[in-house]
Amino acid sequence: MGGCAVIAELISVGTELLLGEILDTNAQYLSGQLAKLGINVHWRVTVGDNLERCRQAFRQALDRSEVVIACGGLGPTPDDLTRQALAAALACPLEHSPGAWEDIQAYFAARGGVAGLHDRAQALVVPGGRTLPNRLGTAPGLHVLSGATHVFLLPGPPNELTSMVEDQVAPILSRLPGRAVFLSRRLRLVGMGESRVSQLLEPLMASANPTLAPYAGQGEVQLRITARGQTEAGARQLLEQMEAQVRAALPGLVYGVDAEDLETVAGRLLSARGLTVAVAESCTGGLLGHRLTNVPGSSAYFLLGVVAYADAQKTALLGVPAEALAAHGAVSAEVAARMAEGVRQLAGSDLGIGLTGIAGPGGGSPQKPVGLVYLALAGATTRVHRLLLGGNREDVKYRAAQRALVELWRLLQAEAVDSP
Amino acid sequence: MGGCAVIAELISVGTELLLGEILDTNAQYLSGQLAKLGINVHWRVTVGDNLERCRQAFRQALDRSEVVIACGGLGPTPDDLTRQALAAALACPLEHSPGAWEDIQAYFAARGGVAGLHDRAQALVVPGGRTLPNRLGTAPGLHVLSGATHVFLLPGPPNELTSMVEDQVAPILSRLPGRAVFLSRRLRLVGMGESRVSQLLEPLMASANPTLAPYAGQGEVQLRITARGQTEAGARQLLEQMEAQVRAALPGLVYGVDAEDLETVAGRLLSARGLTVAVAESCTGGLLGHRLTNVPGSSAYFLLGVVAYADAQKTALLGVPAEALAAHGAVSAEVAARMAEGVRQLAGSDLGIGLTGIAGPGGGSPQKPVGLVYLALAGATTRVHRLLLGGNREDVKYRAAQRALVELWRLLQAEAVDSP
Repeated sequence: MGGCAVIAELISVGTELLLGEILDTNAQYLSGQLAKLGINVHWRVTVGDNLERCRQAFRQALDRSEVVIACGGLGPTPDDLTRQALAAALACPLEHSPGAWEDIQAYFAARGGVAGLHDRAQALVVPGGRTLPNRLGTAPGLHVLSGATHVFLLPGPPNELTSMVEDQVAPILSRLPGRAVFLSRRLRLVGMGESRVSQLLEPLMASANPTLAPYAGQGEVQLRITARGQTEAGARQLLEQMEAQVRAALPGLVYGVDAEDLETVAGRLLSARGLTVAVAESCTGGLLGHRLTNVPGSSAYFLLGVVAYADAQKTALLGVPAEALAAHGAVSAEVAARMAEGVRQLAGSDLGIGLTGIAGPGGGSPQKPVGLVYLALAGATTRVHRLLLGGNREDVKYRAAQRALVELWRLLQAEAVDSP
Repeated sequence: MGGCAVIAELISVGTELLLGEILDTNAQYLSGQLAKLGINVHWRVTVGDNLERCRQAFRQALDRSEVVIACGGLGPTPDDLTRQALAAALACPLEHSPGAWEDIQAYFAARGGVAGLHDRAQALVVPGGRTLPNRLGTAPGLHVLSGATHVFLLPGPPNELTSMVEDQVAPILSRLPGRAVFLSRRLRLVGMGESRVSQLLEPLMASANPTLAPYAGQGEVQLRITARGQTEAGARQLLEQMEAQVRAALPGLVYGVDAEDLETVAGRLLSARGLTVAVAESCTGGLLGHRLTNVPGSSAYFLLGVVAYADAQKTALLGVPAEALAAHGAVSAEVAARMAEGVRQLAGSDLGIGLTGIAGPGGGSPQKPVGLVYLALAGATTRVHRLLLGGNREDVKYRAAQRALVELWRLLQAEAVDSP
């Protein structure tokens, strides 16, 4: 598929990065955006708030890359040196831009403030450079063409960076010649581990274009398909062929695509079938309700959650018989089933879900170890699943809630659910 | 405080990084570890699985840094080129290490497997290099002294990397001369925004050692103090002086330090005072219960959560009068107060918390916009707070739960709470 690819280099500026205080999510974001635009990132370099090392990074990047994007160090404080470093690398002076200064003053005025003298530093540009207005902050970006190399200076705050990339940088880059078209899609699946998935997909994973790569997510596996083509239509066709092959190799496992999570997919099925749900949680402490209600519009189908942490509440509110608690203990199939049925009856919902288990770190025993969870789904009938989950307290909570959503999704796909 | 600091450089190897498919958490981890050891990271460079660019990165690092740590690209596949690139940069051949090969075979044998021919590539070393055994995977690390420069090659999987750093790399680095001692602490505070905090602390933030830097967290502000000294005792003294000054400048705002979050601190106060709590949530959908129950041992004080999403449940379960719902609407001070009192009575707890609001994106009106939330805390008396929160659905949920924890924390510090 070759072609004369465009070579890019990213420069991240900030001492806080080199101290490990923050993760460089900007570099990941920019890398992903450039990959989507068919531009090859060959180098990423991180330097601190140091004029000379920042200058060296620019000089080297200008010598070996066709697109150079730096982020961070554009603010008003003496630590912010990125403009000065670029000017030094280009061996040219910085000039005051009256237009940029007006924008900065307008930004402050719109918020009832006044730009200070130190804010003037943000209105400096290299000769021939074009400032990129910043809708969400004071520091404008900068675009400079040095020979055939495009240089962009972008602000460090992620929301300002992404907005500037989407509105102003990507349109410029998408007009560069020599790019291939890349399309990518993430398939999300549950019910099988990463190693078994990889084994079943081994022949497909040998493909060079499109590529297929598995990732282990929390309580799920994700498969990324990336297709490269000379045209978008060509790349899309390759991508869709691969997706069809994956779905055929793993029937019934793929629940969603890209940003669709399990609660969104389950919620859509509940809405489509006009069904309602209520949940009774013990070990998950409200997480299942929280996830179900993260979906906009969930008030149409989510009626009630009860976090019955104390045994007395399981009996008083959910009607779990005290004898069942005494005979089997709170963490038992019987109690999970009564919780699911109890909350279904209490809420008058079509479906009830019950979760009881031991999230740890304390409370385990040889018979009932930390990570033991019973999950019940009650509709016309009640089913109980016994789970043994690994990890720390938050992992057990997450995996138990995830498994509840998996079983809810399966139930909603599979069969008719009778109303109460 | 100067001294002859040790200069380090990190090289991350992996095309998946340059495509933006994964975040470089290894680079952050290594940066933080080196900062703790008093070693200055001046450069971080990321290259793909490309022999020539990886060689160039090593050559440049060897010329300008005294500690070079590369991670990734040590596995058995043809993509894994880091050893070859280092050998090329040092202009020396790779040699087979019988000892490393025995370790690899033993690793497979212990898991009932057999090392394949391609695994032999992982037993290659540069002359004079010492392999670093890998407890958690097959690829050994490598430590080479080139002139006065220490070079480490480490595996990419984070668990293998961190275990090798802690057990084998840190002990070597901690014996290097010329290091300073750095100590750092994070103060966490609520009840004041970042800009006002910065303004009040401006004189302290001018300090060069220790440094004081504010960060905006979700629903809180964090202040990082970093002190540098020739000895640990000296650094600790500087750090504690600064902490005392910050606390004096911001009385009643600092709730925790480092990893302590608000639910942990509130839980500790509940335990210490022998008090119990129950929560009635609407807009937060279970998130408040989830956060309170993330704390190990929370079953001692968290009795019950009710996610009363539907109005009927607010009346039936929590005893919110239907007239209050009709007169004021579900999102109102009256309903929040009745929810808090209702769940306190239902659970027989010392404290009850009620939350009702509009998380969006739908459901808002000019009188009751998205982000309007009423929060009530009921003990001997009931207090209601009216909140106007920004952001998307998940932000509103998070901020509402955060504010509930803030008010719970304040209540628990402030006064005697009567039992029901």
